[in-house]
Amino acid sequence: MSEQIKNQAITARDVDFAQWYTDVCRKAELMDYSSVKGFIIYRPYGYAIWEQIQTYLDRRFKETGHENVYMPLVIPTSLFQKEKDHVQGFAPETLIATIGGNKEIDDPLIIRPTSEVLFCEHFAKIITSYRDLPKLYNQWCSVVRWEKTTRPFLRGSEFLWQEGHTMHRTEVEARHEALQILEIYKDMGHELLAIPFVTGLKTEKEKFAGAVNTYTVEALMHDGKALQSGTTHYFGTGFAEAFNISFQDKDNTVKHPHQSSWGVSTRLIGAIIMVHGDDNGLVLPPHVAPIQVVIVPIQSQKEGVLAKAEEYRKRLLALGLRVKLDDSDASPGWKFAEYEMKGVPLRIEIGPRDLAKGVLTLARRVDGQKIVIADLDLEAAISNSLEDIHQLMYQKAYQFFTTHMSEAKTLTQIEQALNETTGYVKMMWCGNQTCMDKIKDQYQATARCLPFEQIPFDDHCPVCGEHAEHVAYVARAY
Amino acid sequence: MSEQIKNQAITARDVDFAQWYTDVCRKAELMDYSSVKGFIIYRPYGYAIWEQIQTYLDRRFKETGHENVYMPLVIPTSLFQKEKDHVQGFAPETLIATIGGNKEIDDPLIIRPTSEVLFCEHFAKIITSYRDLPKLYNQWCSVVRWEKTTRPFLRGSEFLWQEGHTMHRTEVEARHEALQILEIYKDMGHELLAIPFVTGLKTEKEKFAGAVNTYTVEALMHDGKALQSGTTHYFGTGFAEAFNISFQDKDNTVKHPHQSSWGVSTRLIGAIIMVHGDDNGLVLPPHVAPIQVVIVPIQSQKEGVLAKAEEYRKRLLALGLRVKLDDSDASPGWKFAEYEMKGVPLRIEIGPRDLAKGVLTLARRVDGQKIVIADLDLEAAISNSLEDIHQLMYQKAYQFFTTHMSEAKTLTQIEQALNETTGYVKMMWCGNQTCMDKIKDQYQATARCLPFEQIPFDDHCPVCGEHAEHVAYVARAY
Repeated sequence: MSEQIKNQAITARDVDFAQWYTDVCRKAELMDYSSVKGFIIYRPYGYAIWEQIQTYLDRRFKETGHENVYMPLVIPTSLFQKEKDHVQGFAPETLIATIGGNKEIDDPLIIRPTSEVLFCEHFAKIITSYRDLPKLYNQWCSVVRWEKTTRPFLRGSEFLWQEGHTMHRTEVEARHEALQILEIYKDMGHELLAIPFVTGLKTEKEKFAGAVNTYTVEALMHDGKALQSGTTHYFGTGFAEAFNISFQDKDNTVKHPHQSSWGVSTRLIGAIIMVHGDDNGLVLPPHVAPIQVVIVPIQSQKEGVLAKAEEYRKRLLALGLRVKLDDSDASPGWKFAEYEMKGVPLRIEIGPRDLAKGVLTLARRVDGQKIVIADLDLEAAISNSLEDIHQLMYQKAYQFFTTHMSEAKTLTQIEQALNETTGYVKMMWCGNQTCMDKIKDQYQATARCLPFEQIPFDDHCPVCGEHAEHVAYVARAY
Repeated sequence: MSEQIKNQAITARDVDFAQWYTDVCRKAELMDYSSVKGFIIYRPYGYAIWEQIQTYLDRRFKETGHENVYMPLVIPTSLFQKEKDHVQGFAPETLIATIGGNKEIDDPLIIRPTSEVLFCEHFAKIITSYRDLPKLYNQWCSVVRWEKTTRPFLRGSEFLWQEGHTMHRTEVEARHEALQILEIYKDMGHELLAIPFVTGLKTEKEKFAGAVNTYTVEALMHDGKALQSGTTHYFGTGFAEAFNISFQDKDNTVKHPHQSSWGVSTRLIGAIIMVHGDDNGLVLPPHVAPIQVVIVPIQSQKEGVLAKAEEYRKRLLALGLRVKLDDSDASPGWKFAEYEMKGVPLRIEIGPRDLAKGVLTLARRVDGQKIVIADLDLEAAISNSLEDIHQLMYQKAYQFFTTHMSEAKTLTQIEQALNETTGYVKMMWCGNQTCMDKIKDQYQATARCLPFEQIPFDDHCPVCGEHAEHVAYVARAY
């Protein structure tokens, strides 16, 4: 894009959070709109963030024995209808192809909103013995859900994701799988995205269409709203029964295998933006940043400046870092603003005066801190600095999470917490959906999860006053 | 799959090549059919081959300055119709979605058969100045073409591919791009797939719908038929004009940028199968093989055998190799047949007698050669052996290509060459499409390319007898 567009200011985060978000998406060149509503263009800088997420997860999945596959893009309507709960959950938002090669298609094809039924049809063919189990499959692809209200990365008619589909001999194994993957998602938050995820169980109402249990990782955005960031499901044998998937077990009896599925999507890019971003744009955690260090030469026409900048680039490349030298003819000030907007974690400034002294300046995006270091210390300083920034960003996000977590024993406290503290409200819950519905009606907040850490702090539900055993996290959410 | 299915023999290659091909696709567990014709399932072993291709190409693309993006899956019909030649080429085989969220869609959506028009619409928005050029974009995705006759990997209603789309200031730059990528495809053949590609220009009739020129890499299959394996295109400014893409050049005049596009697909998996496979199944070149070395313990219940096999696995993993230890309870003989079917380049056999002597046996898939090596030599022997196998496979394929290349100066010679020698027929061509049409009608062979190496060996076209300047390669083809 040309200079004058890039330099336009973005809306302040606390003035209009939604507008700030959209501004950052566009001005940081993460995405653009296409001519079809809800179908976005992932521009190079946005797609590169997704590639970092893919690289991390693909390694973790393969280390734990998973294999990638690719299933068809389309699902015949008749096949889609085999699992009752599943079809009810997805049917209203399907995109359906009815014409192929200029002819009407007899059994219209649903563009996959998720691929459970395709995997199940295949599993039925390839699973016959306990020796064929487990099957640990994953797929990287895009899926389509015809959404009425869309927002870049958060809710789209098409999004990129991975969907894991696994089959196991026993319930214990399948539940272990769902929890193991949830742990990998949580690690990804900690190690890659610098986002502390809350983990827990979804309520019956909020669980996936067709699942016995849904587990979730939830993140807290800067505006105090929660974002479901990934889910894993234990399916039991429901799909296996509907699709006639069975195997002969060690004891020669024929059984249905137990199933799991799990996924995260490009929604994670939205989480990164809304957890870490500020009024100058994107702030990227170092491990997920497509550019980790940008080198901006000052008075680059002066002798030796560009050569030194290029030397730094090569020294950092040799460390395996993702580094960019911007030697374009734009002004240093313009470049500073540009790479701040793009959230590059570290900037190196090198000019003739630095050159004479054998030093360079390091500027941190996260807090604007600038330090001058000796040329010789470059490698150590950059490596340490990137790790410091990652820790700092995680700590900031964790602190935000803890200061936006309230405990509420009455409806008044719930209301107050949602409106004033914002963030999560920890409450006791009787287990009745009507109480959650009331909270939703009155305060537009929903049950995010029943956290795995169940430490009761009261004995009654603040909505109905009945006996309560569950601890639930409630929040307004995307 | 269970044992009895895997052990079924496959059709012999010279008895029924088409059936042999399908047998290998299924028995090597590369793919399976889905319930929708032409939409195949890429099973883990087949997908893993594609992942190796992706890794190689993605590295080469990024080293040459390309960036990955992701465009929408769907194209509004009205947008698709903007470039006249393009729509005529693709319209007959489109899959069209007409219903979204239970409502009819006003401007029905074509599931992308290729993404030129989507890239062009985006380019029109982001290109305004010569400073915005070049744009070097690539996309990994699947595309849909509603085909009447389908074959696994070779022709499908959906296939996986990469599509590059680039915009340049000048014709020279855009043509250089198309040729540079063709060179990368050729390198991939040489370095990864062990396939010698013929490179050249497509004739006007065979070029891509909307291109000024199409360049191609062509491979020769074991049955003497050619396979178009990848193409790159120079578009000129045709799409740029149709989509109003223009930029202000250095001299302040407004111009249309010059465009290229290029792609290879999972068809390459078909090429690997048909170039290298034999009557025992798949034979994989080492660099593209998902499993490079399989370790089969003999009498694995004997003390020390499994421990030694596991030691070998770790030592080879430490070399960065893709290695599998099969310690399942199937018999060694069954395992030999299984990994031969899957084309694993090297097998290690280790039993109690080897253990006592401090040796192991290496068996090569490509020619069945077996050698006994000392335990201490494992690393060096395996590394050398894999490289030897790669060279040998390339040489074999190259020799097959040269012995299936005939020079023909008359129609009779063309017929004889196509029927007896099979493979490519090198002929002089007047440039008139009617002559090629005659060859197609009479002998079912088409112009594969005008090779870059143009060394005339006669002065007239064998079909019409007119003056001929072009050297053309003609062959029966997939």
